[in-house]
Amino acid sequence: MTTSPSAAASHPRLDRLPHVVIIGGGFAGIATARGLAKKKVRVTIIDKHNFHTFLPLLYQVATAGLEPADVAYPIRTIFGDADNIFFRHGRVRDVNHVASVVTLEDGTPIPFDHLVVATGATAAFFGIPGASSYAMPLYSLADARHLRNRLLLSLEDADVQAESTPVALNFVVVGGGPTGVETAGALSELISIMIRRDGLRLDPAKVRVLLVDLAPRLLTAFPEKASAYAAKELRDMGVEIEFGRSVVEVEEHAIRFADGERLETAAVIWAAGVTASGTLAHDLQVTPGPGGRARVTPDLRLVESANVWAVGDAAAVPRTSTEFCPQLAPVAIQSGRHCAAQILRVLEGEPTEPFEYRNKGIMATIGRHAAVAQLPRGGIIKGTPGWLAWLALHLFYLVGFRNRLRVMINWTWRYFDWPSGPRLIVADAETAD
Amino acid sequence: MTTSPSAAASHPRLDRLPHVVIIGGGFAGIATARGLAKKKVRVTIIDKHNFHTFLPLLYQVATAGLEPADVAYPIRTIFGDADNIFFRHGRVRDVNHVASVVTLEDGTPIPFDHLVVATGATAAFFGIPGASSYAMPLYSLADARHLRNRLLLSLEDADVQAESTPVALNFVVVGGGPTGVETAGALSELISIMIRRDGLRLDPAKVRVLLVDLAPRLLTAFPEKASAYAAKELRDMGVEIEFGRSVVEVEEHAIRFADGERLETAAVIWAAGVTASGTLAHDLQVTPGPGGRARVTPDLRLVESANVWAVGDAAAVPRTSTEFCPQLAPVAIQSGRHCAAQILRVLEGEPTEPFEYRNKGIMATIGRHAAVAQLPRGGIIKGTPGWLAWLALHLFYLVGFRNRLRVMINWTWRYFDWPSGPRLIVADAETAD
Repeated sequence: MTTSPSAAASHPRLDRLPHVVIIGGGFAGIATARGLAKKKVRVTIIDKHNFHTFLPLLYQVATAGLEPADVAYPIRTIFGDADNIFFRHGRVRDVNHVASVVTLEDGTPIPFDHLVVATGATAAFFGIPGASSYAMPLYSLADARHLRNRLLLSLEDADVQAESTPVALNFVVVGGGPTGVETAGALSELISIMIRRDGLRLDPAKVRVLLVDLAPRLLTAFPEKASAYAAKELRDMGVEIEFGRSVVEVEEHAIRFADGERLETAAVIWAAGVTASGTLAHDLQVTPGPGGRARVTPDLRLVESANVWAVGDAAAVPRTSTEFCPQLAPVAIQSGRHCAAQILRVLEGEPTEPFEYRNKGIMATIGRHAAVAQLPRGGIIKGTPGWLAWLALHLFYLVGFRNRLRVMINWTWRYFDWPSGPRLIVADAETAD
Repeated sequence: MTTSPSAAASHPRLDRLPHVVIIGGGFAGIATARGLAKKKVRVTIIDKHNFHTFLPLLYQVATAGLEPADVAYPIRTIFGDADNIFFRHGRVRDVNHVASVVTLEDGTPIPFDHLVVATGATAAFFGIPGASSYAMPLYSLADARHLRNRLLLSLEDADVQAESTPVALNFVVVGGGPTGVETAGALSELISIMIRRDGLRLDPAKVRVLLVDLAPRLLTAFPEKASAYAAKELRDMGVEIEFGRSVVEVEEHAIRFADGERLETAAVIWAAGVTASGTLAHDLQVTPGPGGRARVTPDLRLVESANVWAVGDAAAVPRTSTEFCPQLAPVAIQSGRHCAAQILRVLEGEPTEPFEYRNKGIMATIGRHAAVAQLPRGGIIKGTPGWLAWLALHLFYLVGFRNRLRVMINWTWRYFDWPSGPRLIVADAETAD
């Protein structure tokens, strides 16, 4: 970024360059901006947060294994050495793709030559009563902090009640995909550490971590062998798993299932699925595709638009003529990169190329020593090798060497079961005293 | 702490032991509990936070040099290996020292044999209109996070306005003691890093960090030579210092001085002084001493009480017959230790001993390479040696090796001016999206 106080407005060279506006600083938005860094365009990234969040590790922040700043990185700093990239802190109120102007909530109009919609995904509650109010999703740093505070406060309360009548403590994780599996495993670990290390007076028999899913197995995107392995590992850690269960209502302190059972809960963690964020479809006047995602042409432009692009979880990126790419970090990164290249091609007057997703495999971790990875050609790695691969890959993709170092320290601590960990309850509504 | 689920209530040996209740998990409370660990008493620490906060480094959290979890440590974990120490998360509603019972806000009565009041200090606003509402103190982790968000948001707003009409940005620090000096220095560093590293479009000439004090010099507890050195260092870093200035009102976005000047402000940081926390005097029916602190006998018991003690910033600890100890971390730690020893003496039927403060010197840091320390015998150390001494001492006293390691990493990063740092705006009122 330029360090001149006058910046773009008065910089003659920058001012004449085509202006690319990117909405969203997640994997897809950052990858797009990286592809445009130091090229002959002026780029503005708009995000409501001043930081990029490394979503795959949010569940560790929620379960007090990592600290919020470990998985977040200031967007300005990512592009500190790219003179043509600017960050704008704010929320988008409206997109006018006829006039090619984005309007922010504070009224500022931002005209663009090309617009990249990289607004990501958010939890899908499928209209289940109470779910959006009482179930806790995991799609932002704020979500992770809320969940951590809830978990730690529940455990403190249970410790107090252990003095008189011990009560049962049920944590229910809804959804058996990677997020659900990882969160259930980490939560189970947290509870056992706090009992062992912090003298929490809890009867382990009275604390349940329950993972429920409508499907008949975990990790449905993986081969059956991987699902069976994950289920066995989780059960060994004390997680109860129940398949074929459908949630019909979430209450403040309970969950109700289709079979009539009502279970008192200390927290319901919502990992049941995602939908595209925001009011994209409405603003862009497009018919949304699967999961609320924007339908795009093979080169990632919105259908019927010449200069509006959509990438990552916000887009229904075609994989074949009938299938779409999954909503995964590698798709977000690859589609962002592709989009940047295509914008440059359009500006050069060259024809665009279709996006092709290169499957690099998928992985999920279950606990210390246990992870499962599916390789692109169908093989799976599991156990300690899978776990080491998971560690290496996540450290590699995490932004910033300082963050990597600090994350490694926390992982080392937990691995060797040394005392401490960021088990702080810093409530949002905390008063100044 | 015991790991048995039944714990104290059903543990025959622990149940028969005298019960010491400590209110507050700051330096004084933790030092008291440490002195009682593994002794023949049962100890309950009550705190509204589940963590101990290392207050001397809060200003670095506020200025985005450290992360909240770096300066906080779960109280349970500190005493993880002491079977006789329990933590109770909660707030005290009432102390009945006649019946020897503390009542928590949730109504739970906690009877005690000995009570230690270690409730610490909080910002003193001296009745200045608007100060308690709009000025930002620095006495808790929540304070530090609020201040950090305010500072970073002001800088983001100023960056946006740089596109049209650059505005002046005034940060006013009220109070020239160690907290004020350290905060002003760190804030000035933060701004220069963000301009240099993050491409913040700010005209350095339009950003002022102003330190005001009624006194004619900084760091009045230090010799004049140290004050002059601190003032020179701060001015070299770009901090403006104005002495003899009295604040008469703080508004939401302005400050007014006794001489009639009204200055628009982006933030007013309140480092003007402290007063004892809470409604101690009222509950204990004692006449408060200087600064709202509890008057104590030389052995640290409340005047007129046989089993209620006060330590740290909450107590007016006598130093000589006419003087009191300053409100500093070393006094808190030493008085906590002394109190623990005296409680054990009383329980053994031995006479108590008077507290004697051993002055280990005082220190304040101004920025990279610059700190000033006053030695017990009156000499001062300054410059790089002072700064290294400051670093070593703070790392030594910080609780937990993991925290020390992570703090060292952050300091190394800032020292060498490498990119990144925890410059995240994580708003308290943030919604889940």
